[in-house]
Amino acid sequence: MRERLLAAWAQTAAVDHHCHPLRRPQRRITATELRSVFTESVEPRQIAEHVANTAVFRDALRRLGAELGCEPTEEAVLEARAARDPAVHLLALLRASGTGTMLLDHGHALAGAMDAGEHRRAVPLPQREVVRLETLAETLVARCRSVGEWLEAVRTELRRAVEGGGAVAVKTIAAYRASLWLRPPDRADVAAAYAELRELATRTDVRLQGEPLCHALLFDAAEEVRRLGVPLQVHCGLGDADSDLAEASPLGLRPLLGGGRFSGVRLVLLHCYPYHREAAYLCALHADVHMDLSLALPQAGCDGARAMSETLGLCPWTKLLYATDATALPEAFLVAAARHREALAFAFAELVEGSVLDEAEAVDAGRRVLCGNAAALYGLEQWAPQ
Amino acid sequence: MRERLLAAWAQTAAVDHHCHPLRRPQRRITATELRSVFTESVEPRQIAEHVANTAVFRDALRRLGAELGCEPTEEAVLEARAARDPAVHLLALLRASGTGTMLLDHGHALAGAMDAGEHRRAVPLPQREVVRLETLAETLVARCRSVGEWLEAVRTELRRAVEGGGAVAVKTIAAYRASLWLRPPDRADVAAAYAELRELATRTDVRLQGEPLCHALLFDAAEEVRRLGVPLQVHCGLGDADSDLAEASPLGLRPLLGGGRFSGVRLVLLHCYPYHREAAYLCALHADVHMDLSLALPQAGCDGARAMSETLGLCPWTKLLYATDATALPEAFLVAAARHREALAFAFAELVEGSVLDEAEAVDAGRRVLCGNAAALYGLEQWAPQ
Amino acid sequence: MRERLLAAWAQTAAVDHHCHPLRRPQRRITATELRSVFTESVEPRQIAEHVANTAVFRDALRRLGAELGCEPTEEAVLEARAARDPAVHLLALLRASGTGTMLLDHGHALAGAMDAGEHRRAVPLPQREVVRLETLAETLVARCRSVGEWLEAVRTELRRAVEGGGAVAVKTIAAYRASLWLRPPDRADVAAAYAELRELATRTDVRLQGEPLCHALLFDAAEEVRRLGVPLQVHCGLGDADSDLAEASPLGLRPLLGGGRFSGVRLVLLHCYPYHREAAYLCALHADVHMDLSLALPQAGCDGARAMSETLGLCPWTKLLYATDATALPEAFLVAAARHREALAFAFAELVEGSVLDEAEAVDAGRRVLCGNAAALYGLEQWAPQ
Repeated sequence: MRERLLAAWAQTAAVDHHCHPLRRPQRRITATELRSVFTESVEPRQIAEHVANTAVFRDALRRLGAELGCEPTEEAVLEARAARDPAVHLLALLRASGTGTMLLDHGHALAGAMDAGEHRRAVPLPQREVVRLETLAETLVARCRSVGEWLEAVRTELRRAVEGGGAVAVKTIAAYRASLWLRPPDRADVAAAYAELRELATRTDVRLQGEPLCHALLFDAAEEVRRLGVPLQVHCGLGDADSDLAEASPLGLRPLLGGGRFSGVRLVLLHCYPYHREAAYLCALHADVHMDLSLALPQAGCDGARAMSETLGLCPWTKLLYATDATALPEAFLVAAARHREALAFAFAELVEGSVLDEAEAVDAGRRVLCGNAAALYGLEQWAPQ
Repeated sequence: MRERLLAAWAQTAAVDHHCHPLRRPQRRITATELRSVFTESVEPRQIAEHVANTAVFRDALRRLGAELGCEPTEEAVLEARAARDPAVHLLALLRASGTGTMLLDHGHALAGAMDAGEHRRAVPLPQREVVRLETLAETLVARCRSVGEWLEAVRTELRRAVEGGGAVAVKTIAAYRASLWLRPPDRADVAAAYAELRELATRTDVRLQGEPLCHALLFDAAEEVRRLGVPLQVHCGLGDADSDLAEASPLGLRPLLGGGRFSGVRLVLLHCYPYHREAAYLCALHADVHMDLSLALPQAGCDGARAMSETLGLCPWTKLLYATDATALPEAFLVAAARHREALAFAFAELVEGSVLDEAEAVDAGRRVLCGNAAALYGLEQWAPQ
Repeated sequence: MRERLLAAWAQTAAVDHHCHPLRRPQRRITATELRSVFTESVEPRQIAEHVANTAVFRDALRRLGAELGCEPTEEAVLEARAARDPAVHLLALLRASGTGTMLLDHGHALAGAMDAGEHRRAVPLPQREVVRLETLAETLVARCRSVGEWLEAVRTELRRAVEGGGAVAVKTIAAYRASLWLRPPDRADVAAAYAELRELATRTDVRLQGEPLCHALLFDAAEEVRRLGVPLQVHCGLGDADSDLAEASPLGLRPLLGGGRFSGVRLVLLHCYPYHREAAYLCALHADVHMDLSLALPQAGCDGARAMSETLGLCPWTKLLYATDATALPEAFLVAAARHREALAFAFAELVEGSVLDEAEAVDAGRRVLCGNAAALYGLEQWAPQ
């Protein structure tokens, strides 16, 4: 059944609703560069000694070996990619990934990443932008004297990005700049934190962090995001080496849910693992909560498919989205995409084999996850695919 | 092996140790009413757009179609049930559910629910009551001037319900009225909260919530419950749309466990998902802690059977109970019952196939879960089945 | 594939990197004594009424019956062991367990446990010691007037144990004496707590507990442990009846991770269940974090193998260690060892069947878990096996 579902979805071009820009095509990459797109670790010893000894990396080598027609070893893969034209290689892997549309977060760009214009020219796929809230807000501190002025400037820039620039979503990384256990911040704390940051911003680039400012920003931006009618993507669960996983549970988002001031804000919980059962519960309760298992699927080896199956326990498949969270190298896109499709096939096959769905229902449900749900959520229908 | 276990248990009448009253038999129900018993969501858009796209609901349609002899579609099921005599339909589905005894929480009655007397007359099964602590306590505020008087009145009413009325358990919903992270409340906070609630109660019905009053009530009632010799059911984990799942972990119940002031209080952790591994751990440590996966099994689709298997990792099967947590419609009882039995079969078959148990042991263990454990825990043997 | 992997590892002598001393060989043991090594519960009623009704215990009986050539019942097993010479029985079971080297925590000795010297004489296997930090520190309170003096004495004793006594690791049980949610303790709180404990220590044995002293001790000892170049084992997750599982998440260890003052401290997260996905995440990020599923595997029945598979989602197999956490009876060692090997076979077979690894890679990875990783981490190569 898994194979049948995968075959049925083979021609379905996916909407990758959360990914990062590719690097400029480059013939030679190092082993460290290859390993780095398959781990969140930034510690050199971890990458040198341990990443190659993970299910994730071995699986990646196997898939890349098959794609490149070489042995599934790191050396062979690096060799084989170096023998290809790098721009052709990039497009071949992206095509093999089954990606149809990319929603790109350009706010977390690694060295060598293409900017939005370059990316559009290099990659012949429809691309839309996701605005990274904290990164945007950081750039506005230097020119705003007060918190109020700053929040107003952020709102203005969000409007500009969405209404002028065609951005289709806003993303928050409050999980690792502060905490997802959202609390209405104390005004005085916010003012004091802002004064300190602002003072620093007159001299240098600043990094926004800490609960008072991050939560004040998020609560304020959530209302603007609702007015703009775009979803708010929220980093949850694993990811980013400087993240405290204990602070990244989607259960902390309760102040944004279920009516009141934030009624109508559409949330998209990103990654979620290992809090995916909790995220699925929120998706089961609240009409405006959606989720994905991006990152979890490429990172969590054999456990990713089980996580998908656990997620479909409570989450309606009309709330589940597809994403790679890939960055920099086309290899990352190919592997994440393949793992994601296989995890969907695993989980839906389980439902068919348990007589919960028939095959046609499973095929349809999987297509919604791959593209239909994102197209509806981000309003992509109104935007003709190239 | 699963099929063999299910067959062996087919004649075992289950003790549904936690369920809610059925509605008066009614020929026509709406799609929204049907969907509502298969979700905890109370948001109209969730019910209209997403509930039908869950493993849980599709599975329910399949089972109901098989029972009613119609297509497994919502329309066909609603049509087929409308063509039947509603009282006959109710009893047919309840019979098919394999229910032998019902322990009913009448404290959370939906519109149209039968009261205890009606329920007894309409349903020819032994029925006992579970007293909902917070609901009972709310009704006593208006006539009690002080916290002390109020707690005393609650104790008196608990005694009356158990010794006079034959109630077999008390249930607390502190998880969603306050938090399961129990803390001895500060006396002054309790007094202040009570004064405020009491003032309100002189004019209108009141809703008990907040930690000072809910925890004061729970600690006090726990002692009375022990004196009365009945178990204390505790809502844990998922359920109820206004619940904060982060506050509903059974690990917060530690002050009630393991000796001291509350030694001898028998706890029954209800639902538990996604904290079932944690609940199972408490069942493995403490002689007086029991659990069920009610609600989780009907709600969590294919993940329910896995949750059962995870639970049996640590939980002795002499501590695990059977319940549907169903309410209002006989369809809810039938589906929850079938899923629960199949999850038991899945988990025990795994143990047989792993050579941990032989088939006879598994059959016996399952029977204990279905009825033996509850009969012993609630003292149902002393009460002749009708 | 599982069978093939088990066969390939059959001759691999494991490094049990965390276990407790055996009791002096004894012909007759009671049913309660046998049950007690297969549960963390210390409640007589739990042991009398429920432990025999767990997957864990039934599985143990089956394995012991096979080893002793008797029926898999408690009576038969107790009978069969009583018919054997107890010293021969001990060695036979230990041999059958596949243990090659034991790293022993003598700090938690049950009645009748052998001390280090006796243990070495009775058991012809290489043995090294793990120093139990809190137990060591307790003994030093009486002779130290101030916190500073006490912490200095602890450091001195740690040096003596490692450099003089050949101890290969230090272990902390802060999880159940205080909390793993580490916080830099307030100096005044530490001084006050120490004064109180010290006053008590002049009259009686003391038990170290509470956050100020336990965290002060742990932070201080962590630096010494790094200087000594030995790993710090940290009890996480389940275990010990007086532990609050909510305080035992490895995510609380963040202050010890990722650079800064504690950079270079090698942590070994013990047990971890049900926080093994979280532990695996830390192992995926940080070069100096390792983990095991000891205790979880013998205790969590069929769920142990799944936990292993979940763990290998994120944890490099070069970070995963083998341990039984067994104590007192050779039966505990045999059963924990067999379950651990089978769980490894289950999880690695899944990776082979999913084409992530080939069989040779899986065999090699399993060998690292069974012995290679521990040998490297604890520097056992420099120490010739007897």
